[in-house]
Amino acid sequence: MNKHFRLVISCPDQVGIVSKISQFIASHNGSITEANHHTDVQDNWFFMRHEIASDSFALTLEQFKSAFEPLAQTLNLDWSITDSESRNKVILMCSKESHCLVDILNQWHSGDLDCDIACVISNHNDFQDLVKWYGIPFHHVPVGNDKQQHFQSVSNLISEYDAQSIVLARYMQILPSDMCDKFHHQIINIHHSFLPSFVGAKPYHQAYNRGVKLIGATCHYVTQDLDEGPIIEQDVARVSHRMTPQDMVRLGKDVEKRVLSNGLRMHIEGRVIVHDNKTIILD
Amino acid sequence: MNKHFRLVISCPDQVGIVSKISQFIASHNGSITEANHHTDVQDNWFFMRHEIASDSFALTLEQFKSAFEPLAQTLNLDWSITDSESRNKVILMCSKESHCLVDILNQWHSGDLDCDIACVISNHNDFQDLVKWYGIPFHHVPVGNDKQQHFQSVSNLISEYDAQSIVLARYMQILPSDMCDKFHHQIINIHHSFLPSFVGAKPYHQAYNRGVKLIGATCHYVTQDLDEGPIIEQDVARVSHRMTPQDMVRLGKDVEKRVLSNGLRMHIEGRVIVHDNKTIILD
Amino acid sequence: MNKHFRLVISCPDQVGIVSKISQFIASHNGSITEANHHTDVQDNWFFMRHEIASDSFALTLEQFKSAFEPLAQTLNLDWSITDSESRNKVILMCSKESHCLVDILNQWHSGDLDCDIACVISNHNDFQDLVKWYGIPFHHVPVGNDKQQHFQSVSNLISEYDAQSIVLARYMQILPSDMCDKFHHQIINIHHSFLPSFVGAKPYHQAYNRGVKLIGATCHYVTQDLDEGPIIEQDVARVSHRMTPQDMVRLGKDVEKRVLSNGLRMHIEGRVIVHDNKTIILD
Amino acid sequence: MNKHFRLVISCPDQVGIVSKISQFIASHNGSITEANHHTDVQDNWFFMRHEIASDSFALTLEQFKSAFEPLAQTLNLDWSITDSESRNKVILMCSKESHCLVDILNQWHSGDLDCDIACVISNHNDFQDLVKWYGIPFHHVPVGNDKQQHFQSVSNLISEYDAQSIVLARYMQILPSDMCDKFHHQIINIHHSFLPSFVGAKPYHQAYNRGVKLIGATCHYVTQDLDEGPIIEQDVARVSHRMTPQDMVRLGKDVEKRVLSNGLRMHIEGRVIVHDNKTIILD
Repeated sequence: MNKHFRLVISCPDQVGIVSKISQFIASHNGSITEANHHTDVQDNWFFMRHEIASDSFALTLEQFKSAFEPLAQTLNLDWSITDSESRNKVILMCSKESHCLVDILNQWHSGDLDCDIACVISNHNDFQDLVKWYGIPFHHVPVGNDKQQHFQSVSNLISEYDAQSIVLARYMQILPSDMCDKFHHQIINIHHSFLPSFVGAKPYHQAYNRGVKLIGATCHYVTQDLDEGPIIEQDVARVSHRMTPQDMVRLGKDVEKRVLSNGLRMHIEGRVIVHDNKTIILD
Repeated sequence: MNKHFRLVISCPDQVGIVSKISQFIASHNGSITEANHHTDVQDNWFFMRHEIASDSFALTLEQFKSAFEPLAQTLNLDWSITDSESRNKVILMCSKESHCLVDILNQWHSGDLDCDIACVISNHNDFQDLVKWYGIPFHHVPVGNDKQQHFQSVSNLISEYDAQSIVLARYMQILPSDMCDKFHHQIINIHHSFLPSFVGAKPYHQAYNRGVKLIGATCHYVTQDLDEGPIIEQDVARVSHRMTPQDMVRLGKDVEKRVLSNGLRMHIEGRVIVHDNKTIILD
Repeated sequence: MNKHFRLVISCPDQVGIVSKISQFIASHNGSITEANHHTDVQDNWFFMRHEIASDSFALTLEQFKSAFEPLAQTLNLDWSITDSESRNKVILMCSKESHCLVDILNQWHSGDLDCDIACVISNHNDFQDLVKWYGIPFHHVPVGNDKQQHFQSVSNLISEYDAQSIVLARYMQILPSDMCDKFHHQIINIHHSFLPSFVGAKPYHQAYNRGVKLIGATCHYVTQDLDEGPIIEQDVARVSHRMTPQDMVRLGKDVEKRVLSNGLRMHIEGRVIVHDNKTIILD
Repeated sequence: MNKHFRLVISCPDQVGIVSKISQFIASHNGSITEANHHTDVQDNWFFMRHEIASDSFALTLEQFKSAFEPLAQTLNLDWSITDSESRNKVILMCSKESHCLVDILNQWHSGDLDCDIACVISNHNDFQDLVKWYGIPFHHVPVGNDKQQHFQSVSNLISEYDAQSIVLARYMQILPSDMCDKFHHQIINIHHSFLPSFVGAKPYHQAYNRGVKLIGATCHYVTQDLDEGPIIEQDVARVSHRMTPQDMVRLGKDVEKRVLSNGLRMHIEGRVIVHDNKTIILD
């Protein structure tokens, strides 16, 4: 991947936005290597993501921020710019199931996930040494009788590491509301059903009982409303009457890890914009 | 397709079922060209479907019925046998959307659906001449103020044609309870969502509002509980933030027609057994 | 769909293209309702498609052409602009298999394919009356001993109707080279395999013999090299050892009609750019 | 999974096979928990796989072998019986890419692959400690100038471990013919294309150059003919013009690991019968 700045914008739609922004970029010799636009015609809202080659660009990130601000105010933009060199700092949280954890760790190790993994936090220590093989700090934070204390410890770790993203890789604990608010649109969960079907516990058993012909998984941002946050990615796999709930659990793991890592990839590349509890994926 | 008898069985599981039944078939020179078994280990229930070449078989259908009955009673079987030459007699019901209707008609015309189509019943007459091109009677039964009368007329037509199966090919009317009961596991509906998500009206708009990344369709038997009957077949298609509800409606049609014709094919080939509001598909 | 102009561009990549073009559009009060860009970093080539609301635009199509030409020359553009109101004029060609023909006709009839269907040409007359039900002229042009004459007649019909696109909806005849050249990137074929696997005749039988676990279909532009033209769309379906070649033929039809209608939709909406025997699909 | 014997049979088709075999099983109080049949009507060949609950069965594995042999000879069976308790002994071979290796190791560790992993053999030692975390011996067997010696060492290791299956988890070396013969239908490879498309080296680059819209992976038994062995499993993923060959390599890894682990699962559960360079998958 070439070095680039990522400019992400959303604003009320109006004539001339692209013209003014692209003129600004071109005037500083910006070479746009990837551009995505979306206009929500119903809401009259505009979304844009540009990758601008940073090597040949005339501005540094800080210079861009100052120089662009007046235009941004004129256009009433909600905007951000990031440098592909400043990789998203991610914390992984897991419990006793390893499929999502290991899949993300190994993709990261192979250079297929362009982020930093700050640490792994788990309420069990089963995977401590495995995580260390990947050169990543591991924190065992048990869930005792005092759940509030558990989450306080987790929250402290997130702050200490200054992490931007938290991935619940089958973490299996419901986060307290204040934590959902504090890390708004920063916490990514994988739910093991095709939402909105089968919210809550034991979704594969629910799917088995309903007799569906496909099972699924959903990657979404965590909000205060359980399993109701903005959906980033989903996928399904075919099942049959021959499968027990245990078979579905096993097959589902393949879907879960694929959906979570794909959703995470979109997130860390700054491709996900949340609008009205829905996501715009600019890929 | 070669001529065959289809023997379909379900019963409490026990040692020796397959042995006794296959011995019976072999003793009459029955050549089994396709065999499917399923044991529900949780319920301890056994399901079986055999295709037996009828040309070389020593028994006629009627002779089979008499000769097999004693064994069936011994094994406590729920069973049926049908002749592939006696094709399932199907009535199609539609409204103003033609995609499912035309897809079924044309597959049937091409020899790809092995059933008889008795007639098409619609509350509109838009497709009268098109249906007639396929050589199939068309009945326009409007839905007036008196819904009860409408359904009485429909019910009478089903009886007159002595139809075994009724396909609601986007018929858009909710059937009265007594009709659901009268034609138990004979009425097939296509619902334009991935059930149990988005029951009821305007599922694509519901899907749009929830921001799902896949839309789906579900083929199921109609029961008194709206959109709650046993699921025969499901499939999905990928959507994105770029799609309006209208785009989803259009894309969904492709899924609906595929799911409905596949479900219907399983049904008319006697491959679907309903057990506990779920289907066993012996294919 | 709202009325719009479609501006499609490809050119050597350079800084400032988007800026200059969007400035031109904005300066004439152009509201961009959909924008797609692609930069081929390997070839250093740029591709763009814009939909511009035509109602509020200050220029007519002809005025746009004149006004834009100087800029286009400066940027060395390969470009075109079309009006969504001037629908693509399509001729369908078929033989004795109706699944693709009927699927396209019915989607068109339902308002789901935004084109005009000029006529249907077939070397058989099986579907003459069905086509006429859709209100479309039907031309029976038999393939006799003189293939050259057949293709001359077809070519004349295309010219008479002034058609822009020709769809080989399972037409089953190999077009002569001069015709491939004359209607360059205007003829769309559906091949019943996942190309480049199984070129030529009886691909499902080839697939059966190789024992593949998925069969597919490919929609591509016709060129002089049989089954080697630029691929527009592909899809697959799962098969098993239980399926005969005939079963694959039947299942394949579902894939073929889906792939062809999706490819055709991209084509008529001006979303397909051919570059180096590959397609850029700006959707 | 319950303890069971797996009886796998293939033979020329004839009336009475199922009857005689199921009678034999029932006469020893065999409870069949899963049964799969397939009749190849073209070749007139019969295939069968039964799972028989071993706890309640009257025969031990050895007793079954002796008692069944006379019937097997009468019916001219090619047959085998295995005990689910005697797990298939598998050797994994890899090179410098870890996605397939780690996926299999972790599924095995989670109890989702019912086999023993004897050891990992690699021509590099990058993953030595990771493999050891899983408690599995690791053998670094470099490929030097003398390839024959390398393969001799590998072959010796396979014999020492008495392994029944060898998985080439992106091993990247072409096996010598004698080794392919010696371990006939025991060596499973993952090829990173949808065979028969793109045999040989750099299939993703081939796919990129051809402009296909789906990429795939193929799990197959290794034979002397490179990439021509019987296909066990295949799957695909959608690509677009936006993807570079490197993007396809990354996306392909997800398909490869899924296809390989699914194929391996079928193999170790004794569900794969090879017939005429094709596989029957009795699942």
